[in-house]
Amino acid sequence: MSEPTRTDYESWYYQRPVMVTGGLGFIGSHLSERLVELGASVTIVDSLIPEYGGNEFNVESFADRVRISITDIRDRHGLGYLLKGQECVFNLAGQVSHIDSMTDPETDLEINCRAQLGLMEALRHVHPGTRVVYASTRQIYGRPNYLPVDERHPIHPTDVNGINKQAGEQYHLLYADVYGLPTVALRLTNTYGPRQLMHHGRQGFIPVFIRAAIEDRPITLYGGGGQLRDANYVTDVVDAFLRAGARADQLSGRVFNTGARPAFTLRAFSELLIAIVGKGEIIDAEWPPEKSRIDIGDFEADYSRITAELGWIPTVGLEEGLRRTVEFYLEHGDHYW
Amino acid sequence: MSEPTRTDYESWYYQRPVMVTGGLGFIGSHLSERLVELGASVTIVDSLIPEYGGNEFNVESFADRVRISITDIRDRHGLGYLLKGQECVFNLAGQVSHIDSMTDPETDLEINCRAQLGLMEALRHVHPGTRVVYASTRQIYGRPNYLPVDERHPIHPTDVNGINKQAGEQYHLLYADVYGLPTVALRLTNTYGPRQLMHHGRQGFIPVFIRAAIEDRPITLYGGGGQLRDANYVTDVVDAFLRAGARADQLSGRVFNTGARPAFTLRAFSELLIAIVGKGEIIDAEWPPEKSRIDIGDFEADYSRITAELGWIPTVGLEEGLRRTVEFYLEHGDHYW
Repeated sequence: MSEPTRTDYESWYYQRPVMVTGGLGFIGSHLSERLVELGASVTIVDSLIPEYGGNEFNVESFADRVRISITDIRDRHGLGYLLKGQECVFNLAGQVSHIDSMTDPETDLEINCRAQLGLMEALRHVHPGTRVVYASTRQIYGRPNYLPVDERHPIHPTDVNGINKQAGEQYHLLYADVYGLPTVALRLTNTYGPRQLMHHGRQGFIPVFIRAAIEDRPITLYGGGGQLRDANYVTDVVDAFLRAGARADQLSGRVFNTGARPAFTLRAFSELLIAIVGKGEIIDAEWPPEKSRIDIGDFEADYSRITAELGWIPTVGLEEGLRRTVEFYLEHGDHYW
Repeated sequence: MSEPTRTDYESWYYQRPVMVTGGLGFIGSHLSERLVELGASVTIVDSLIPEYGGNEFNVESFADRVRISITDIRDRHGLGYLLKGQECVFNLAGQVSHIDSMTDPETDLEINCRAQLGLMEALRHVHPGTRVVYASTRQIYGRPNYLPVDERHPIHPTDVNGINKQAGEQYHLLYADVYGLPTVALRLTNTYGPRQLMHHGRQGFIPVFIRAAIEDRPITLYGGGGQLRDANYVTDVVDAFLRAGARADQLSGRVFNTGARPAFTLRAFSELLIAIVGKGEIIDAEWPPEKSRIDIGDFEADYSRITAELGWIPTVGLEEGLRRTVEFYLEHGDHYW
């Protein structure tokens, strides 16, 4: 592997001990890989709960260069042991399925509330200097009152997962405010790319649509498919985490949206995807009442705060990102189907 | 006991099986007593956790006319059993100390998040027609952006209790939205009156000040004592619960502030209290940094929504309310000190 180019914030990680919770997952594995490239001493913590995003294949190419612990973040003793000496925790472990949060709300609460609060307590009492970057989500905004949605937009979660993710985020920000922990939260918009879980369809529209196109199955659009969305390619999100971690000591208690321009309609997304894959088709359907009721309408994030304060901008456009993603799944789909 | 006058909403409770969680506590016991007067069949559920507000003396005068179960709402089997046949649950049980939520955040989470979510699940699966009125709090608004604070004001909890109470409220409203449970939330402002816990000072300024005055100890005001607050006498809050429960089927998923006019400064409150008690004194002090940091500034609730939709208005003014409260503690203080 050739030495990567390093910017100031990236050089902060050189030889630093850092932890990535959810590090066998989609975003976590990309972040871990980049941290390894930057010379960090990376501990991956992942529960490998079936049906969640953790997948050992995600780290196959660099597994010999990281410490991997199969630890559930609900296991406070295990987590406490692993936290020793860490200078930055990228806290990506979570229950991310909105549907699962409604069928098993208690597990969602255990992971997205209780384990997060436990982490904050462990850091407060034992490791108050450890930086934390928490992976929050734009889902907590619910149905937007205005577009683009900035960080001051009211929070209105529309499912148990949203309520619990919000509480998890708030613990992080509260412990920053009250105890001075150097903690930052990123509210991620839809993120896509290689290594995302594909074997069930409960983690958002992008993996569902990609798999459908690759398998030459129809993509169903409701109500015309005119709903606006934005999406970040995964390496751009990794870059946001790296920037936030390197500056978390100065930005303690702050929250930042990620996002991308231009936003696109689900129809435009589907057409682009079908063109890239060369397979698939769109089917239009009426809104089923149970889906219509939870639909959030249009969404587009205002990410000017993270641009202003951390210099972050997305660099991989949708077409290029989708092309790379499709290529990956054409080659490695058997590890994800 | 003579037959009380009944209004329409009060007559709804006649011979109804209803549950009051936290029914041995301050507000819960007043509510239970009134429900008994209205002819309801009342089940009180209370954990009697030491240091919380439950106190058997609170129900002494009507204990033979209610069913009392010493059950922790975290005990899902016990709670599930008691829920059978209930037509309305007044859900007041909670960990209410902001200070305790910071020293033992996990217990706060267990009671204010997990047990609330468990109650919603039990109702959804087994008793979807049971009405619920949830006791939320104005504390979740945090430091106001504007006054008076209406229900659209952004939520900004300032401690673990606020985060968890918010999540607890949101579970109630979400289960109303998604599953149609007839659930309403009241965001209570400061409530005062007889039967409030007095033996420690971790439940807000009013009991602390009242006890200080009665014991002829100084009341300490920080930064001049000019901070605005509002407060409801407990029987007015009981009335808000009764109105909400009787209409919860039509107001499912709604949230309502309580409040009172005029707001008062902490200094004016203290002076009035000292005049009523005939003892006590005010001491002025600089803000201690740790208190200054968590102070929310002025607060005054906009309660026009509950007035418009439920016809509720507060009827007991501060002077009259304080007079009754002081009288009660002069007579029964030994049960509360």
